[in-house]
Amino acid sequence: MQFSIREIAHLLNGEIEGNDEIMIKDMGTLERATEGCISFLSNPKYEQYIYKTGASAVIVSRDFKPAEKLKTTLIRVDDPYLSFSILLAEYDRIISFQKEGVEDPCWLGENSIIGEKIYRGAFSYIGKNVTIGNNVKIYPHVYVGDSVTIGDNTLIYSGVKIYDRVVIGNNCQIHAGAVIGSDGFGYAPQKDGTYKKIPQLGNVILKDNVDIGANTTIDRATLESTVIREGVKLDNLVQVAHNVEIGENTVIAAQTGISGSTAIGKNCIIAGQVGIVGHISLADKMTIGAQSGVTKAFEKEGATILGSPAFEIATSRKSYAIFRKLPDLVERVRKLEDKILK
Amino acid sequence: MQFSIREIAHLLNGEIEGNDEIMIKDMGTLERATEGCISFLSNPKYEQYIYKTGASAVIVSRDFKPAEKLKTTLIRVDDPYLSFSILLAEYDRIISFQKEGVEDPCWLGENSIIGEKIYRGAFSYIGKNVTIGNNVKIYPHVYVGDSVTIGDNTLIYSGVKIYDRVVIGNNCQIHAGAVIGSDGFGYAPQKDGTYKKIPQLGNVILKDNVDIGANTTIDRATLESTVIREGVKLDNLVQVAHNVEIGENTVIAAQTGISGSTAIGKNCIIAGQVGIVGHISLADKMTIGAQSGVTKAFEKEGATILGSPAFEIATSRKSYAIFRKLPDLVERVRKLEDKILK
Amino acid sequence: MQFSIREIAHLLNGEIEGNDEIMIKDMGTLERATEGCISFLSNPKYEQYIYKTGASAVIVSRDFKPAEKLKTTLIRVDDPYLSFSILLAEYDRIISFQKEGVEDPCWLGENSIIGEKIYRGAFSYIGKNVTIGNNVKIYPHVYVGDSVTIGDNTLIYSGVKIYDRVVIGNNCQIHAGAVIGSDGFGYAPQKDGTYKKIPQLGNVILKDNVDIGANTTIDRATLESTVIREGVKLDNLVQVAHNVEIGENTVIAAQTGISGSTAIGKNCIIAGQVGIVGHISLADKMTIGAQSGVTKAFEKEGATILGSPAFEIATSRKSYAIFRKLPDLVERVRKLEDKILK
Repeated sequence: MQFSIREIAHLLNGEIEGNDEIMIKDMGTLERATEGCISFLSNPKYEQYIYKTGASAVIVSRDFKPAEKLKTTLIRVDDPYLSFSILLAEYDRIISFQKEGVEDPCWLGENSIIGEKIYRGAFSYIGKNVTIGNNVKIYPHVYVGDSVTIGDNTLIYSGVKIYDRVVIGNNCQIHAGAVIGSDGFGYAPQKDGTYKKIPQLGNVILKDNVDIGANTTIDRATLESTVIREGVKLDNLVQVAHNVEIGENTVIAAQTGISGSTAIGKNCIIAGQVGIVGHISLADKMTIGAQSGVTKAFEKEGATILGSPAFEIATSRKSYAIFRKLPDLVERVRKLEDKILK
Repeated sequence: MQFSIREIAHLLNGEIEGNDEIMIKDMGTLERATEGCISFLSNPKYEQYIYKTGASAVIVSRDFKPAEKLKTTLIRVDDPYLSFSILLAEYDRIISFQKEGVEDPCWLGENSIIGEKIYRGAFSYIGKNVTIGNNVKIYPHVYVGDSVTIGDNTLIYSGVKIYDRVVIGNNCQIHAGAVIGSDGFGYAPQKDGTYKKIPQLGNVILKDNVDIGANTTIDRATLESTVIREGVKLDNLVQVAHNVEIGENTVIAAQTGISGSTAIGKNCIIAGQVGIVGHISLADKMTIGAQSGVTKAFEKEGATILGSPAFEIATSRKSYAIFRKLPDLVERVRKLEDKILK
Repeated sequence: MQFSIREIAHLLNGEIEGNDEIMIKDMGTLERATEGCISFLSNPKYEQYIYKTGASAVIVSRDFKPAEKLKTTLIRVDDPYLSFSILLAEYDRIISFQKEGVEDPCWLGENSIIGEKIYRGAFSYIGKNVTIGNNVKIYPHVYVGDSVTIGDNTLIYSGVKIYDRVVIGNNCQIHAGAVIGSDGFGYAPQKDGTYKKIPQLGNVILKDNVDIGANTTIDRATLESTVIREGVKLDNLVQVAHNVEIGENTVIAAQTGISGSTAIGKNCIIAGQVGIVGHISLADKMTIGAQSGVTKAFEKEGATILGSPAFEIATSRKSYAIFRKLPDLVERVRKLEDKILK
């Protein structure tokens, strides 16, 4: 992966000052960048580093006046930080979508329809009656069950397992080892103490712009669908049980688990290792602190909750603050008892 | 997958009323079912929906008298809800076991013995000296190490990894990405601060009718066996450490972890995100609340415990109730102090 | 896998007493060992079992005097327990490294350099520009992305997924389903409530002697590297976020999660299901109790912390002890109130 300094200057609407023939192959901070890297100077506090940087090029602001002689090429732009972000995003996009074509062997079931600019890695498996859009990248060891639908521009990394009839939207990213559409955990207790499996015949729907972290698991619905709405981002090792719905643009950090048939609102922020009980609704724009245990519905939009069991954050914090000083409280009671009861 | 309405009526011992030539390809609720679907009417509250349902057929009770004209075919049975459940279970069984044959390429090591009606998906790997019963379905990307034994009618979904010498019973279901038989986490601390690995040479035994959730991990014993007894059901992302034993018909929800050498009783219900310390025994028929941290043995059959650390539920609930109102308690103590100490 | 009794005696510097022609194929305790097994007698308490053991050979101390006639062959050594451990470790090493050669089909990208004594299992995938040392064992379904480097004597079990540019040292063991180098969970909130992905362009570095458990996930850094230092041992289902650093010889039990940019000290012991907040530092030689929630930096070397939120163990334990007896405390306050306020 290489870019010429001219391509970069063009992308950023910047002016080159210095050698305009160099090639850039990596990015880094001023302190750590080496030859072939591009860096940026935004905060004047770091100006000292530009005079000794190993970077081949540095993005600076249009009005930057070097105090010493520079060895590096400059690209002058309006906002160096923003320009560097644009460059990162562009680099990321190119890297992510550069793979194309079919590696052999890989499996394609009958009646499956595949779009253009597809990558199908070696040992990937696509079942029967599958529909896949354009510019989809299916890495090695991905399993796509029968009758699955996948939209455009979706990245599916190595080892992802997608069960039958799952529906995945456009612009999704699913990281290695994630499992989408496994059976919901539903059993009917029998009189002899054994359990009888309740058939899990629904599916999972991921809407557009959904990201799923590594080794996260999303169970399919008993009937109908487990639904992950547009723009939802799930971190690694998250558990989403059957018939759950997660509202638009909600983000959920690692190792959180959501029990069956619960509906999470939109634009919520759920921290790591949270557990949420089944069959409840949570309002939009809620924030849930790490390791919380949510045992009941919350209806107030924008509420922040914390604790196990979770309650409103101000109350929760007060209780935790006292908890830490419980020995003091006991001592105060003991003193009162000494005075009164003896 | 299609069924004729006559096959369904025969299975349910029902009577067809209307078009007996139709084919059924899916199931759904009265409100959402479309052409080719079958639905059911059990609760009279939903009767209104039968008059406008898109379902091609509806299972109703023998004495159902429509108040309006119906467009859909009826199947009259004694108990519509039960009949629908039977139909779901039958459909699920057929779907789950329909795959048969060997997809190419897949790997089969020497001296391995495979039963009849087997499915071996593309890119599945079966090592040496493996014994597999009849009607076993091994999905793509499954890895079965050397000297593994698998009973009859067991389903192993895509990407399951089974280490050497694991023994799996009949009628088990193992969901995608589960790992059975990885090394126990055992290290001997050395004087220089490093750790030396303790060899993990045992195995894992899953008895009959065991279900394992997606991305769950079960470590093999140091010597001898980690044992998951008959009828145990584990949800997704559960961790079972080396030398653990889980008693018959115990169910464990997602993200729970059981530390090494602990023995769980039979017919227990363990909720999600529970942690259980190593080297303890828990009694039969216990219930353990979500996010509990079990730090010691419990010997009382049928006990319900909660909290981290976990104790008997009545005590635990009282403490949590007061916890939430700790600021009030502090205020009460402050008032007493005002009165007494000033 | 078979050893002659003479090979074993030679390895342990022991003397054979009895049949020196037998072959050993397994190991076990005196009570459970069967023909072809070797066992050991160290604690005199178990001497009774040697007279009826099914083991073909037993390791005993040089001065052991049987009280009855023995059917089993003896190997006399200085320290039977130590000798048995040595035998286990040797057996484990041989078993672990015995696989060699290339199973077909497997994938090897262009410009990749592979050392000697390599095992590459069927359906394993190695990308472009990869460098792999000697005696590395890559099991079926392993995915190694482009430009990855792997040192000598490293074991990578079935289904491990390694993203581009990850660097793995010597003598590492990575268990099935682990994901190394997935995208960090970084998003910039936009004004319309959606999130924009922050490109994750760094990598993950595992130093020498690092063990990674089954289905554990380690995210790559945004820029630069997530670093797991020499001798670190991670259990199953652990989550390590982007830009984390874990110091030498730290061991972390199952289902613990470490948030982004946190630096863990060396020689720490972190129990299971711990959550650690992002952007903090923890001192060396710390111990963190199970299910703790670490919300702030701890600078004191060797500190033991516990609780959620976690604080120093003595304080934490006092608070938890009182927590359990909160109903008593409330009752004491009530009595005081009765006396004073009424």
